[in-house]
Amino acid sequence: MTQIQAQQMEELLNVGIALSSTHELSALLEMILSESRRFTYADAGTLYLNKNGNLVAEVAQNNTLRRRLGSQRSTAIFRRFTVPIGFDSIAGAAAETRDVVHIDDVQNQPHNSPFQYNPAFDRAHNYSTHSNLAVPMLNRQGNVVGVLQLINAIHDGQIVPFSDSCIHVAKALASQAAVAVENALLTESLKNANLDSLRRLGVAAEWRDKETANHIMRVSHFSQLIAEEMRLGSDHVELIFNASPMHDVGKVGIPDAILNKPGRLEDSERVVMEKHCEIGADILKDSDEPVMQVSRTIAVAHHEKWDGTGYPNKLTGDQIPLEAQIVALADVYDALSSKRCYKDPFPEEKVISILKNDTGSHFSPIVSAAFFRVYEATKKVRETFDDTEATFDKFVSL
Amino acid sequence: MTQIQAQQMEELLNVGIALSSTHELSALLEMILSESRRFTYADAGTLYLNKNGNLVAEVAQNNTLRRRLGSQRSTAIFRRFTVPIGFDSIAGAAAETRDVVHIDDVQNQPHNSPFQYNPAFDRAHNYSTHSNLAVPMLNRQGNVVGVLQLINAIHDGQIVPFSDSCIHVAKALASQAAVAVENALLTESLKNANLDSLRRLGVAAEWRDKETANHIMRVSHFSQLIAEEMRLGSDHVELIFNASPMHDVGKVGIPDAILNKPGRLEDSERVVMEKHCEIGADILKDSDEPVMQVSRTIAVAHHEKWDGTGYPNKLTGDQIPLEAQIVALADVYDALSSKRCYKDPFPEEKVISILKNDTGSHFSPIVSAAFFRVYEATKKVRETFDDTEATFDKFVSL
Repeated sequence: MTQIQAQQMEELLNVGIALSSTHELSALLEMILSESRRFTYADAGTLYLNKNGNLVAEVAQNNTLRRRLGSQRSTAIFRRFTVPIGFDSIAGAAAETRDVVHIDDVQNQPHNSPFQYNPAFDRAHNYSTHSNLAVPMLNRQGNVVGVLQLINAIHDGQIVPFSDSCIHVAKALASQAAVAVENALLTESLKNANLDSLRRLGVAAEWRDKETANHIMRVSHFSQLIAEEMRLGSDHVELIFNASPMHDVGKVGIPDAILNKPGRLEDSERVVMEKHCEIGADILKDSDEPVMQVSRTIAVAHHEKWDGTGYPNKLTGDQIPLEAQIVALADVYDALSSKRCYKDPFPEEKVISILKNDTGSHFSPIVSAAFFRVYEATKKVRETFDDTEATFDKFVSL
Repeated sequence: MTQIQAQQMEELLNVGIALSSTHELSALLEMILSESRRFTYADAGTLYLNKNGNLVAEVAQNNTLRRRLGSQRSTAIFRRFTVPIGFDSIAGAAAETRDVVHIDDVQNQPHNSPFQYNPAFDRAHNYSTHSNLAVPMLNRQGNVVGVLQLINAIHDGQIVPFSDSCIHVAKALASQAAVAVENALLTESLKNANLDSLRRLGVAAEWRDKETANHIMRVSHFSQLIAEEMRLGSDHVELIFNASPMHDVGKVGIPDAILNKPGRLEDSERVVMEKHCEIGADILKDSDEPVMQVSRTIAVAHHEKWDGTGYPNKLTGDQIPLEAQIVALADVYDALSSKRCYKDPFPEEKVISILKNDTGSHFSPIVSAAFFRVYEATKKVRETFDDTEATFDKFVSL
């Protein structure tokens, strides 16, 4: 084993800590590649992840092209591509053998070399690949998480083969990177799982109300657009986005006769209907999770009105939690602008005039102003989560 | 900075990878402490985590006591305790200053030393603390995640002060440990968040059925006990535990007039009632998440019967997914043995005789046998999640 200088190892330790602290996958992959290039003096490189037995190139960096074309154009060159694990490519071979593949100069390979060097990229971009180092990213079980491919080691301005000590450092880095990538994927998957559960909670609650799953998605996205426009922090925006689907969860507690009554509710029926806010708060109570706490806040207060004429607590102005102010407008906007079982969408001018008219009485002026600044973007959301006739079919079947 | 041998740093890298790969918190904390002791030749140590500004001692290890008392008895000595961050203790001071606190011999401290050495533990267990090293575990933002306290460095069988190189290694390890602990806490919190959401989905669905949140918890725990007894893998058991709360989510789609009808349903009403399995499947469909996929399986098949007389698909025997076979029994057991709005719990002998009688017709013989082997444990679950009168109050209010 080559001895590496202690200081370099110490730097490696710090890189490992930095990688472990980075949970956002794309930022992590860029960091892995740039740190690997830094430690090995590599001009360029590509990072592949193992997806169902194929290597998908997720990130590429090329210092020469970046200097020639600028950061933006050199990044734009990159197209995600897939190579099979196996001896068809250098990266594929590293994954197949679970060992480093190191080629001094791909332009001068012996005739019996198993690797086909593909000059397409070099020709298209006037680049010249010579030294090449592919390091498998192995997790602790020895499974291939991905491959780190480094290109053109630079020494005194010349392209040289990768040194033994560079190879050694790259292997250490690849092991750290493998764990960090697995952890980031786990975090991402746990977040997605929870988001999925929260939305289904919303969908289940809206089922009897003959609302569609798309209604949940639209209100969630409208709320996100408004919150972003109001310059709330990204964590706060994400909380609102994730918490808003449950705003009507309390409707599970409202009897059919009232929930589905056509036409106007009697006063006594309206009293029962309005209980959905407090039932929702009860279903969502006592959680340590911030998203559940915000969803409870929204559930209980999304029918409060700016002038104090809402329910259940007749709050006024900023007594109404900001998250509920936002969802209140998003929810009404969706009700007006969407088809329901019992009504067609209102014309755009009518929707706008109702919302403008109710600003300051029903809606917060600040929330309303933010909404109208992102109005065009809300139309995109409506296109993406458009209800078709088929969406409503399920309600007819019972 | 003391130069550490490259090989030791390389070992540290591997320890960092091992720590990052360990997501279960208590295993991680034990590993951090034992690895730190190994690198610093420490006879004993304690690992504290920062909880709301106090240091909570989570893990302690003591090699001398372990050899004297055996592993079990020496572990049993440990009591979790809390020390404030501040100059009242060595660990507290390390957290307060965010720097290493190193004392050659706590028995011979200068009179002006700010630290009070507490000899209580030494006296109680006939141990003698001398050299002491407290290292703050700082995350990348410089916040104190915890403190690593190491006691009695051993060299040639003698207790000596911790060397500079040991201190240096301990600091490197503490930084790696800080990130690993934060990641483990994040993973734990994301898992808890999702579990919380899944249960609320179940609670929302049972609301109209006048079931209680405790019903969800009991069925979940009964299913877990049966699955464990059947020697399913721990991941599979966890999936069943987490997925079972949603088994009746489709009841949100059943009209009140049928769901809450007292007495027997007409044939035509029963057809509608039985749709709750397929509505549940619809609410839970199209998920990439294993727990949601299992919950869908359970929702659709938990009313199938072993002899093919169940619904909706009249599956027989092992055509019925195993998870649904388990929840089917757990659900009926809870219905029989619990109070409902409309009935008192059945006497124990009657519950047992019904379940035994229906084994082979309604229930899988294997699931039923496993259930009766864990029957005593199910009674504990019933005590833990017992419904009080207050649990039912909410249903009366509407």
